[in-house]
Amino acid sequence: MGNGKSKNVEVGKAETGKLKRVDVSPVANYQANIAESHETFAVTEQWSPQPRPSLDKRLSLDLLSSTQLPEQSKQGKVFHPDLLNRNLVQMKYAVRGELAAKAKMLEEQGKTVTFTNIGNPHALGQQPITFYRQVLCLLTAPFLLDEPTIEQLFPSDVIARARSYLKDISGGVGAYSDSRGLQRFRQDVAHFIQKRDGFPSDPNTIFLTDGASMAVRLCLNALIRNKQDGLLCPIPQYPLYSAGVELYGGTLIGYELDESNGWAMNIDNLKSQLMAEKQRGVLCRALVFINPGNPTGQCLTVENLREVIKFAYNEQLVIMADEVYQENIYASDAKFVSCKKVLMEMGAPYSQSVELLSFHTISKGLIGECGLRGGYMEMTNIHPGAVDMILKLASINLCPNVLGQAATALMCNPPKPEEPSYALYTKERHGIYDSLKRRAEMLVNAFNELDGISCNITKGALYAFPNIDLPPKALEAAAKAGRIGDEFYCLALLDATGIVTVPGSGFGQVAGTYHFRTTILPNEAQMPDIIAKFKGFHEKFMTQYA
Amino acid sequence: MGNGKSKNVEVGKAETGKLKRVDVSPVANYQANIAESHETFAVTEQWSPQPRPSLDKRLSLDLLSSTQLPEQSKQGKVFHPDLLNRNLVQMKYAVRGELAAKAKMLEEQGKTVTFTNIGNPHALGQQPITFYRQVLCLLTAPFLLDEPTIEQLFPSDVIARARSYLKDISGGVGAYSDSRGLQRFRQDVAHFIQKRDGFPSDPNTIFLTDGASMAVRLCLNALIRNKQDGLLCPIPQYPLYSAGVELYGGTLIGYELDESNGWAMNIDNLKSQLMAEKQRGVLCRALVFINPGNPTGQCLTVENLREVIKFAYNEQLVIMADEVYQENIYASDAKFVSCKKVLMEMGAPYSQSVELLSFHTISKGLIGECGLRGGYMEMTNIHPGAVDMILKLASINLCPNVLGQAATALMCNPPKPEEPSYALYTKERHGIYDSLKRRAEMLVNAFNELDGISCNITKGALYAFPNIDLPPKALEAAAKAGRIGDEFYCLALLDATGIVTVPGSGFGQVAGTYHFRTTILPNEAQMPDIIAKFKGFHEKFMTQYA
Repeated sequence: MGNGKSKNVEVGKAETGKLKRVDVSPVANYQANIAESHETFAVTEQWSPQPRPSLDKRLSLDLLSSTQLPEQSKQGKVFHPDLLNRNLVQMKYAVRGELAAKAKMLEEQGKTVTFTNIGNPHALGQQPITFYRQVLCLLTAPFLLDEPTIEQLFPSDVIARARSYLKDISGGVGAYSDSRGLQRFRQDVAHFIQKRDGFPSDPNTIFLTDGASMAVRLCLNALIRNKQDGLLCPIPQYPLYSAGVELYGGTLIGYELDESNGWAMNIDNLKSQLMAEKQRGVLCRALVFINPGNPTGQCLTVENLREVIKFAYNEQLVIMADEVYQENIYASDAKFVSCKKVLMEMGAPYSQSVELLSFHTISKGLIGECGLRGGYMEMTNIHPGAVDMILKLASINLCPNVLGQAATALMCNPPKPEEPSYALYTKERHGIYDSLKRRAEMLVNAFNELDGISCNITKGALYAFPNIDLPPKALEAAAKAGRIGDEFYCLALLDATGIVTVPGSGFGQVAGTYHFRTTILPNEAQMPDIIAKFKGFHEKFMTQYA
Repeated sequence: MGNGKSKNVEVGKAETGKLKRVDVSPVANYQANIAESHETFAVTEQWSPQPRPSLDKRLSLDLLSSTQLPEQSKQGKVFHPDLLNRNLVQMKYAVRGELAAKAKMLEEQGKTVTFTNIGNPHALGQQPITFYRQVLCLLTAPFLLDEPTIEQLFPSDVIARARSYLKDISGGVGAYSDSRGLQRFRQDVAHFIQKRDGFPSDPNTIFLTDGASMAVRLCLNALIRNKQDGLLCPIPQYPLYSAGVELYGGTLIGYELDESNGWAMNIDNLKSQLMAEKQRGVLCRALVFINPGNPTGQCLTVENLREVIKFAYNEQLVIMADEVYQENIYASDAKFVSCKKVLMEMGAPYSQSVELLSFHTISKGLIGECGLRGGYMEMTNIHPGAVDMILKLASINLCPNVLGQAATALMCNPPKPEEPSYALYTKERHGIYDSLKRRAEMLVNAFNELDGISCNITKGALYAFPNIDLPPKALEAAAKAGRIGDEFYCLALLDATGIVTVPGSGFGQVAGTYHFRTTILPNEAQMPDIIAKFKGFHEKFMTQYA
């Protein structure tokens, strides 16, 4: 299982009983650890339940006086990778793992690298929405509002919005706010939800967070008590959920999406996974779905959502609805409907009892403000005492960053048709949307033209997730190199072309299938060239291993 | 132990064996939970080790098939406060607890409330440093750089700095950065450290984070494996550390600071606490100190730091040096020296082996940019494999917010004497510093003039932490109301005057002593009035309970 790196150190048994190697080279070798973990990640292929660490560490303190102390240090280090939180050590998060680290090194060496591993639109040239940056600028530098030339610098609605927000941001953007985010901003979010769905939304059930990921983590950290607590997650899935489950010590219950049917969800499949885990003593607490899907791009219909809601009601599961790509829908036969809306439309008993957590962000959609770190969750039918616990957890970091909060409010409360900024705002959005749509089609078509690759249509989100039909010789070569097939392919792709992707094993996939995820985000003008490079690599690879 | 609220529900035994009530009233009753937790927080008074949850939840999955499933729901709720992560439920974080929540309610009812519970300078009128906001504004709205009038709007060094940073922020502030923060900004931080201490600092050992609190939590989350892992923390202490230890399932090992000696640290005391815990099977992993102290305001000397370093070396402990108040030192006989500097000056073997984590922030000092959420940690002598684990943990949230990163870099790389902004920058800083110093003295003197209160001098940080000599009748009344003495006092203070403080029990204190923490941050012009109100309340209270 070696990865060819020097200075591997055998460091003793991890709780799984397997020897784990830890490379002691510098930080850049983070990939060494991830290589290890990739070999065990593919959820349905090799994943098996991790037994809890041995009992001697879990005894109550009453018994501890007779227990041996843990090992204090290793190689002279207390903060040694073998002496850390095992959940963290075992946790895998492939999006920024080995391939990304290697790509960075290549870039530092002067190679041309195209980062299509991560949904990071601005890094690839997408422009911020002007209105948002104008308002944020004035919130940051309110003294500009005193400039005599302010009206030449900014449209009147920008000035008015900034002044209006500043009235409600006591102390300005440099003051800690409420740990749930400023009331004013939560009101903007609630109005947006109400307008979108046609049902009331209460700002007191909304938490603004540093990106939707933080909101997801607050919930998982609260919900998961131990390995008996399970989380139903789609396979493939954006590995925030699997990483979170691992980190907080729970059990992932994967439900496979049906690649032959546009990555559809199959409720019977969810049900049988649930039952099987119950037999093994795992109680599922919540069900996650990502709509539109990441990496898979499928969109759920109203009927799908009704089915999910009924399932959650019958099985008593909290629903975690990751809806961060709700503005990225390209297929003409698809339309975003929020889980909240469907839930409310279903009426009693569902609308009054199904516990729903809905997540949204400023990082995706058409605004792509990843670096500002903003997002929210809306909590529907959640026990107030549980909301209190989430609030307590959120309060340890005092509050989410205020400019990110403001950006979230701006996303939810854009210029109105009668306002001066509306024309430019709309033009910018249409430009981004139309281009994303074209690039999604361009990329998926290109993949489907090649032998040995097939790709479901990207109906939504920001990715393509092609299926690679790896020849047996390629799989042999991969095994020899200590790699899963798609890792091997993606590393070769990176070496040959500088294109950075994420292997499908990072998201989970049906045993014996191989995929990779790429974004649709490279600049449209560069797409043909990137596609050509990819094509060149793929045909050469398939010939080499024919 | 009732708190007079309706609808208390007895919800069954928590793992401590005590019945815990959970109020099912709306979110505003977060305080109900905190009231419960306050009653058990005072670390040396009532704190006792929490036994681990019963074994049946901790068995390996091999055995689970014969184990009962956990309770699925309560009162029809899966996400019920009784069915959540017990560490979270039991965790206490008093700074934003009951009193703050109650104060908010009073404010909403129209009462005049003075928030001196939290180090939040801008909320109380402190102005941001102009240079920083000017640069941040241009990073947010780079299109302003194209304005013909840009040089009338901003000084040339602001423009130059913004242009320079933008060159190194690929994709602008809306793109995800490296999970450790942008290289350019980490370089600014490294240069600052080098200039401050006279020893090299490597940007690759620096992580930028959304506030220093996030950096602390990354480390605790990695270091603490289970209840056998201990953390040596000062008593009293800013409860981030106790909350973190609780949340991540470790054991707090408190070392009392000596109030009669200016809150000095006593190494023998640390040593005996360490030994006692070892007997009980707890291995201390790290030692925290806050310098200058929070809430206590004492400053460590070079000799103190040498002692701490030797102690950490001998006992094999990681040092966590919380140095967020390093710019807030008022006493003429005190001067900030970083732990890193002292460590390096000590030379081998210490300088090459003592594992040190140093934390700093933009939230305090003279810039007070709490809401932007920025800070960093520097990792000295930390195993690269452990740094990898921290990086992996940081990467789940992709990156810290980029504007907060920029503000951190700006704090570390301010205008130079020859630059246009220098004069204003220096003037603003001196104004803030001189005022903080005056307010610290004003407040401490005012406390010391009153009977029944004594207060150590605030040599540093942003707080006063007076000792209240509560009369027996007051303690009786407190007990009757189900309160710790200082909680009772602080609630009465809030009711009578609208002044919001944090009871000493929220920070830990020697058994039988009572304190509260107030900030020194109210506007200087309002201080005499606030002091007068406080005085009026205190004298009345002491007379009432004489």
